Amino acid sequence: MDPDALAKAFVEHYYTTFDTNRSGLANLYQEGSMLSFEGQKIQGSQNIVAKLTTLPFQQCHHSITTVDCQPSGVNAGMLVFVSGNLQLAGEQHALKFSQMFHLIPTPQGSYYVLNDIFRLNYA
Amino acid sequence: MDPDALAKAFVEHYYTTFDTNRSGLANLYQEGSMLSFEGQKIQGSQNIVAKLTTLPFQQCHHSITTVDCQPSGVNAGMLVFVSGNLQLAGEQHALKFSQMFHLIPTPQGSYYVLNDIFRLNYA
Repeated sequence: MDPDALAKAFVEHYYTTFDTNRSGLANLYQEGSMLSFEGQKIQGSQNIVAKLTTLPFQQCHHSITTVDCQPSGVNAGMLVFVSGNLQLAGEQHALKFSQMFHLIPTPQGSYYVLNDIFRLNYA
Repeated sequence: MDPDALAKAFVEHYYTTFDTNRSGLANLYQEGSMLSFEGQKIQGSQNIVAKLTTLPFQQCHHSITTVDCQPSGVNAGMLVFVSGNLQLAGEQHALKFSQMFHLIPTPQGSYYVLNDIFRLNYA
């Protein structure tokens, strides 16, 4: 699969899982993974998913605007950079966000998220 | 220097150079470096700086809103994620942007930019 198609497939999978079954994201992180969520750093799959599943909203829907990817230069890793909109249930306006992922291949031929940085883009 | 301070120092240096002497950015890239600028991929220091110095505006000023950084997990590299505003000379409104850098240490004890992904955040 070419890198752009792989990045798009990852992004589709990530945000569909986020929007329908947030605890299912645990499979995408490992112990060394780090999430920076609005400036707060959280390490390890369990802690990251605990953060994501306890965000102060129940339902949300991500709409992706752009996906950029580049090889990360090491271990066939890949950098994926996303921009889009986040619609929370009950809120009138969508929030704009940007997020980047550093994906690392697993021995099983899949990828996991080593680095994840998320920011809302305040208007 | 701790990673957050290093990231902030890099960001300060990068955007000051961009705003005052864009061709000076050549020193920050190498042959293997890649820039994704609004979806266009450009490789190599010379090509990247040619792109940046021929953007369709002469003067600009970046104002940084957030800087996040994480160790990239390999070679003591570092991921730096920036959001901010870009004011072009003669334009009434600033443009919001997000940008990420993958910094790799050099044998000389400095860093160069291996990966650079830039996107405007359209309102």
